[in-house]
Amino acid sequence: MQRSIVIILSFFILLLSNGCHAQTDADAAFVEKQSFTFENFTTLGGEVIPEVTVGWESYGELNAAKDNVILITHFFSGNSHAAGKYKADDVLPGYWDAIIGPGKAIDTNKYFVISSDTLVNAFPHDPTVITTGPASINPETGKPYGLDFPVVTIRDFVNVQHELLESLGITKLHAVVGASMGSLQALEWSIAYPDMVERMVSVIGAGAMDAWTIMALEHWARPIRHDPNWNNGDYYGGEAPLTGITSTLAMITQQAMHPVIMNLRAPKPEVLPEGALASVTNSMPVLDYLFANSATRAPLADGNHLLYLVRANQLFVAGHDNNLASGLAKVKAKTLFLPATNDLLLQPYLAKQVVTELEQQGKAPQYEEIEGVWGHLDGLFSISSKADTLKAFLED
Amino acid sequence: MQRSIVIILSFFILLLSNGCHAQTDADAAFVEKQSFTFENFTTLGGEVIPEVTVGWESYGELNAAKDNVILITHFFSGNSHAAGKYKADDVLPGYWDAIIGPGKAIDTNKYFVISSDTLVNAFPHDPTVITTGPASINPETGKPYGLDFPVVTIRDFVNVQHELLESLGITKLHAVVGASMGSLQALEWSIAYPDMVERMVSVIGAGAMDAWTIMALEHWARPIRHDPNWNNGDYYGGEAPLTGITSTLAMITQQAMHPVIMNLRAPKPEVLPEGALASVTNSMPVLDYLFANSATRAPLADGNHLLYLVRANQLFVAGHDNNLASGLAKVKAKTLFLPATNDLLLQPYLAKQVVTELEQQGKAPQYEEIEGVWGHLDGLFSISSKADTLKAFLED
Repeated sequence: MQRSIVIILSFFILLLSNGCHAQTDADAAFVEKQSFTFENFTTLGGEVIPEVTVGWESYGELNAAKDNVILITHFFSGNSHAAGKYKADDVLPGYWDAIIGPGKAIDTNKYFVISSDTLVNAFPHDPTVITTGPASINPETGKPYGLDFPVVTIRDFVNVQHELLESLGITKLHAVVGASMGSLQALEWSIAYPDMVERMVSVIGAGAMDAWTIMALEHWARPIRHDPNWNNGDYYGGEAPLTGITSTLAMITQQAMHPVIMNLRAPKPEVLPEGALASVTNSMPVLDYLFANSATRAPLADGNHLLYLVRANQLFVAGHDNNLASGLAKVKAKTLFLPATNDLLLQPYLAKQVVTELEQQGKAPQYEEIEGVWGHLDGLFSISSKADTLKAFLED
Repeated sequence: MQRSIVIILSFFILLLSNGCHAQTDADAAFVEKQSFTFENFTTLGGEVIPEVTVGWESYGELNAAKDNVILITHFFSGNSHAAGKYKADDVLPGYWDAIIGPGKAIDTNKYFVISSDTLVNAFPHDPTVITTGPASINPETGKPYGLDFPVVTIRDFVNVQHELLESLGITKLHAVVGASMGSLQALEWSIAYPDMVERMVSVIGAGAMDAWTIMALEHWARPIRHDPNWNNGDYYGGEAPLTGITSTLAMITQQAMHPVIMNLRAPKPEVLPEGALASVTNSMPVLDYLFANSATRAPLADGNHLLYLVRANQLFVAGHDNNLASGLAKVKAKTLFLPATNDLLLQPYLAKQVVTELEQQGKAPQYEEIEGVWGHLDGLFSISSKADTLKAFLED
């Protein structure tokens, strides 16, 4: 059993009472993580990364015309494992298995679905993740890059995926679909390569980071930067900043969930728990619940990678052009926006902002909200409620 | 000019375009911070604090029967300066000056309005704050308490206020009114001293901390605890954990504001700002805006006090009894709940929970939501919109 999958997804097993959001499908074909390497990648900031390697997975078959491709772009703490299982005894399949598979909304009987790990993936020490970032070896020094790794943007994530697709001879995307940070990539795809992208689906997404969200993201960076083990990014070979990483992962987990679901799943707060009343440094059951899971996942994450991911998101304005409008002016794809009504992280106003701008440009974006009690995570766990919308959009 | 007031409130001056939320009133009587000391305070946890000193202010006159008293309890980052000015050239009056004063909703021509600084106030180094907490000198050692200071609860804040009122011969409260953490104290007052409290007003409040909010509060503590200067609470005489405190204050500021208002006030995010693209450790204008203010305020705060405040809030279940229902069963006061519709910190569901329980107990709580774009801060800056409701409630 893949250790990483167990650890990363075990949290959600705990959370899911009925398992209906992520069904075990005994018939699912096994998927395999593959690796793609290319050289001399020039970032949007003009820096050159001598060698880039990223992992990728695919579901379904590429047809002869190579025109049945759907690209899935992953979220902040995710990776390319969007569907299927690696082995029969994997506890859970990929995160969007509910909508990706034979006969499902993203029908692998029709489409060749491909997904890749981004640059600076949050969990480079997860053995199923293949990424390039500050924790990677700099071929020029033989040591991890650390903060010498160039700042990368969502556009860079897209450009790496473009290299991957090019290597497979793919020049057309039937659709690109992504949730959260994946939605930023999906939208960016439709601007960076407008003639290549026929359909774009943004789930729990945004068109540009606003001041409030840039600030919210910064709070994810601070615990890592405050951890003495972070050592200005130079900790490889020494102690990793696990305390800071744990705090960051805990914050992401809490903020991605709406109070309704968190309060259902977490222990009920006790009245005057003895330990917590004895000292401010003592924990309480509610906090143990949150932090224990984050502490378990922390060793698979990398502190610098998390900082680079935060920065990539903070720098996002679709198109990275003069402004959001000028970026969106390049979009030729049909577009569908699916924010979650109860999302507290990327609230629906962010998707509405893009829709309004596209409409003003005479385009016809589709917009529906995902209802649910998960908050931001409705983009993962309640996605089945939009299966019909998605299916119709893809077939139209 | 009081330096503290300038610093703490200058942020809001920057934010307020028209000043209508916090008018300068040339006719306002000057207020004076006073000090109250008593000995051997036993906390809810059973610890004894040899000497407690807290600051207090009052507006209006105590009548001969001493039955015209309204107590105002302050919010997390606030203090007892609820109304008026200390000096003519103060930039702003107290935080609820819009509703406290002659002829205002809380009419100082009728009522004697009193407010006190809580135990473990967040800003003990603000010269206008008088509080007792970890930064205070432990008379037994002649040194600051640090983490030897006992954990205190919202009930302890209330009990200290009770001592203050008792010292003034006050045995009846026409009303107790508080916002945010002040609302917790107001509700607790109506349970701890049910025969003393005639009316209770909870603004942007809660009846008990739920798991989600306990977690959210913990994120305010972590940056301080991760700061190496925190040194397990033992930093008095050395470097204070200002980096951690700054991060905490920035997080509170961002979370207390709804995106609409934050995005109106903060600099507009730039496309690919040069510095931020050059290094993940470089700032960006949006972040400078947030953190500069927090860094300015940090030296007035105390890291340990913030941790104690977080814990007091985390431990809150009104009544600190078996459960919320058994606590609320003791309430005899008329109650009014005014959550803010767009509050992202203490969302309206928390106030509704109390209202539902009180109704089930056959009581008749009043409930109205404050509309506005400030989010949690609507409890301060949009309170005028509920002036009539408040006035009617107090006069009924």
